[in-house]
Amino acid sequence: MTRIDLNSDLGEGFGEWRLGDDETMLELVTSANIACGFHAGDPALLLDTCRAASKLTVRIGAQVGYHDLTGFGRRFIDVAPADLTAEVIYQIGALDGLARAAGSHVSYVKPHGALYNAIVHHRDQARAVVAAIRAYNDSLPVLGLSGSVFLEEAEHSGLAVVTEAFADRAYTPEGTLVSRREPGAVLRDPDEVARRVLRMVTEGVVTAIDGSDVRVSAQSVCIHGDSPDAAAMATAVRALLDAENIDVRAFT
Amino acid sequence: MTRIDLNSDLGEGFGEWRLGDDETMLELVTSANIACGFHAGDPALLLDTCRAASKLTVRIGAQVGYHDLTGFGRRFIDVAPADLTAEVIYQIGALDGLARAAGSHVSYVKPHGALYNAIVHHRDQARAVVAAIRAYNDSLPVLGLSGSVFLEEAEHSGLAVVTEAFADRAYTPEGTLVSRREPGAVLRDPDEVARRVLRMVTEGVVTAIDGSDVRVSAQSVCIHGDSPDAAAMATAVRALLDAENIDVRAFT
Amino acid sequence: MTRIDLNSDLGEGFGEWRLGDDETMLELVTSANIACGFHAGDPALLLDTCRAASKLTVRIGAQVGYHDLTGFGRRFIDVAPADLTAEVIYQIGALDGLARAAGSHVSYVKPHGALYNAIVHHRDQARAVVAAIRAYNDSLPVLGLSGSVFLEEAEHSGLAVVTEAFADRAYTPEGTLVSRREPGAVLRDPDEVARRVLRMVTEGVVTAIDGSDVRVSAQSVCIHGDSPDAAAMATAVRALLDAENIDVRAFT
Amino acid sequence: MTRIDLNSDLGEGFGEWRLGDDETMLELVTSANIACGFHAGDPALLLDTCRAASKLTVRIGAQVGYHDLTGFGRRFIDVAPADLTAEVIYQIGALDGLARAAGSHVSYVKPHGALYNAIVHHRDQARAVVAAIRAYNDSLPVLGLSGSVFLEEAEHSGLAVVTEAFADRAYTPEGTLVSRREPGAVLRDPDEVARRVLRMVTEGVVTAIDGSDVRVSAQSVCIHGDSPDAAAMATAVRALLDAENIDVRAFT
Repeated sequence: MTRIDLNSDLGEGFGEWRLGDDETMLELVTSANIACGFHAGDPALLLDTCRAASKLTVRIGAQVGYHDLTGFGRRFIDVAPADLTAEVIYQIGALDGLARAAGSHVSYVKPHGALYNAIVHHRDQARAVVAAIRAYNDSLPVLGLSGSVFLEEAEHSGLAVVTEAFADRAYTPEGTLVSRREPGAVLRDPDEVARRVLRMVTEGVVTAIDGSDVRVSAQSVCIHGDSPDAAAMATAVRALLDAENIDVRAFT
Repeated sequence: MTRIDLNSDLGEGFGEWRLGDDETMLELVTSANIACGFHAGDPALLLDTCRAASKLTVRIGAQVGYHDLTGFGRRFIDVAPADLTAEVIYQIGALDGLARAAGSHVSYVKPHGALYNAIVHHRDQARAVVAAIRAYNDSLPVLGLSGSVFLEEAEHSGLAVVTEAFADRAYTPEGTLVSRREPGAVLRDPDEVARRVLRMVTEGVVTAIDGSDVRVSAQSVCIHGDSPDAAAMATAVRALLDAENIDVRAFT
Repeated sequence: MTRIDLNSDLGEGFGEWRLGDDETMLELVTSANIACGFHAGDPALLLDTCRAASKLTVRIGAQVGYHDLTGFGRRFIDVAPADLTAEVIYQIGALDGLARAAGSHVSYVKPHGALYNAIVHHRDQARAVVAAIRAYNDSLPVLGLSGSVFLEEAEHSGLAVVTEAFADRAYTPEGTLVSRREPGAVLRDPDEVARRVLRMVTEGVVTAIDGSDVRVSAQSVCIHGDSPDAAAMATAVRALLDAENIDVRAFT
Repeated sequence: MTRIDLNSDLGEGFGEWRLGDDETMLELVTSANIACGFHAGDPALLLDTCRAASKLTVRIGAQVGYHDLTGFGRRFIDVAPADLTAEVIYQIGALDGLARAAGSHVSYVKPHGALYNAIVHHRDQARAVVAAIRAYNDSLPVLGLSGSVFLEEAEHSGLAVVTEAFADRAYTPEGTLVSRREPGAVLRDPDEVARRVLRMVTEGVVTAIDGSDVRVSAQSVCIHGDSPDAAAMATAVRALLDAENIDVRAFT
């Protein structure tokens, strides 16, 4: 039986503000990348999100990012590696505390936003994140982009690595993501997205933006939770996977 | 052999800023109340402070406070209890992560500043802090003021409680602290402070501001680390206790 | 011709987060209480909001508050008066800079949330806010609650004061607001709210929660912009006032 | 009579923390680059610093930076130009409000730290800062590095530009600063620094790190206020300039 994990970014409100429909998403995904307070997520919201995830036995991942509420962690910050290591440990520890108070625990780490993008190439920051995870708990797997320097460094250091594909993003014929600045970079039709995810999972293939097929190897598929159609999209994906008897299950 | 713990607030700088001489204090005290990032302490400084404490086998306590860098945690904030519980868990978890990365762990919790003062009387916030500690790890002792609602609630909930006295503060004949707004509230002479601490430890008594003796029962003595004379004062206290063969040792 | 000002809190998002439908509200109100970055409002959002207000010639007021993004400025903070004065000047200056860059300027000051509530009674903080406004520009009027210590101090110091009533809040027979914790404190029916505002404006009277009539003297009526029905409510209020030939116009 | 301005970074503490001896520096310099709260400077400290500068008729400049207290504004942040423009307006407005409350006003703008360094080359961010200053007050001069893209864009847009040299930094034979990572990059001897400043001012020349003379054209000389020897260095510089009858005076 084919098996896949579905992950989504959750707990990304702050104080009075909310982003996305976490309640619905938690019914559909198996891994919740929960913010850690640096790009989003005040402690009370994070504790609530951990409780909701714990109740539904959705796995909790620490979504660590740059310390930048204004930019939602989407602006590169040239943090010195030693400082970044401490910032990532701080975030994992904080979320793990809340997750444990909620009867669960942090099961993996996924970098967020500009940090995620930076450590595709930025070796010093990639190593800093890896060092943080190893210092905190070297049995925590990391979730990231196949081919990234981050996963390479993580694997090399002995961490378990989990690759992900993106449900609603267009791919180039080379298998990389089409930049968000290009037309057609983000897919909006729930049925089309669901069919793409099914092919990723069953055939390891996705239709690239030029119509060709390209291999995509992923143990987890990321479904964005903060777009207006996120819930509809996630519902369609989950329904099709269930109908096709795919075993949707956390990777941990 | 009489035994006492010496505690001090450390890691209270932030980014480019420093407060107090942590290096010297860590040589003299047995318990380090380390800030958790809410009133002071960026992650890199906190990690360094945890490493220094760990190296000297000084116990690490989580010094939790209100989220208020501008006010250094010294301004009362009317935080709702549920939010405060989440904020305290977040802080303990974050510091514990850094402490573990440094080869140690959080051994106790001591509230800071306005939170410390508020929960002497404010039962809802006191309960919120106790709930946080219990949710995180119900074997963590709390360090606080004898007679406070906080220690009462902590004890009632089953947490271990440790009482503290203050090395450099004047006491009223009733055994409470003279307000900082009163003249003579803070003692400055290292030798006098050392002799007072010795009496607290050996006789359980301190000379009150009116000259009378008043009972002070404390398992730990707090030495402030951020005054100009802090290092001299701590040095004098430690030297006298050592000379008198007092067993200066962490309470945990 | 009877005249009234309609005010609403705007610019209360932050970074990626939004609150309320500012665009619609700006078409309906005559005075925009724009956040200043301390309880909400990053600079880019505030500049956009100032530009939108300026384009529609809606007056810009500085909605100053405690420095507390997590609590959205709704938690009392025991700020020392001298510090509060500096914090309020800082906020007015920052928003005025953005307003001027947008071709307008700050025309009045309205405290937000817990600060608004605190200075109904807290004389030291009330004086601190008044001192800030006078230091910045002593020709700026203040918008506040009739009978509050804040307006009393403002008036006494020579500032122009403008009183406001609340469109969607229940009143006690004494003319004060029913606490949000009481049932029926917040009205939800747009037509009822519109009719109440009309009576406030034309008769200076509102029906209290016990059915009696109570006098409400207000030069401005506050319409909340962040409730789910805010736009519908504001639309109904404005439509009725326009139909009744009330001159809806900024008080400045 | 030869004329020069001396500038220094001031108001760079935060809350409980202080950096440098502002009181002494304000007696020696003619232009105070005062932080604006984004990299340092809480409102109360900034107001105090503005008052002290105003009392001594030292000119106040807005030292604008990235929003990064943890990194003290010394880490590049990839802020979108439109956001940066709003952030700079916000900072200038906030400080100008405080300066006006102190009987003075913002007389010029000098970017800080990583922003200063970034806009030596980063044209989009340089233009964003220029746009902010023009939007706030297009008669404000900017203080910056000769040859930088920032000054080029500022001049091109019609802003007055003022170039600065650095009292305690080594120069390359090409007239650029020796990187702080190189040995000898920062000079420590007050007398040597004073003699170098005198030559800069009277001859427009400084001895480069290889012993050659290199031209340095500056209307202002920056004296760092946060090094341990800052006050001694500034005292020596000012004393020598006064002894040599140089007219030390603000450029505005």
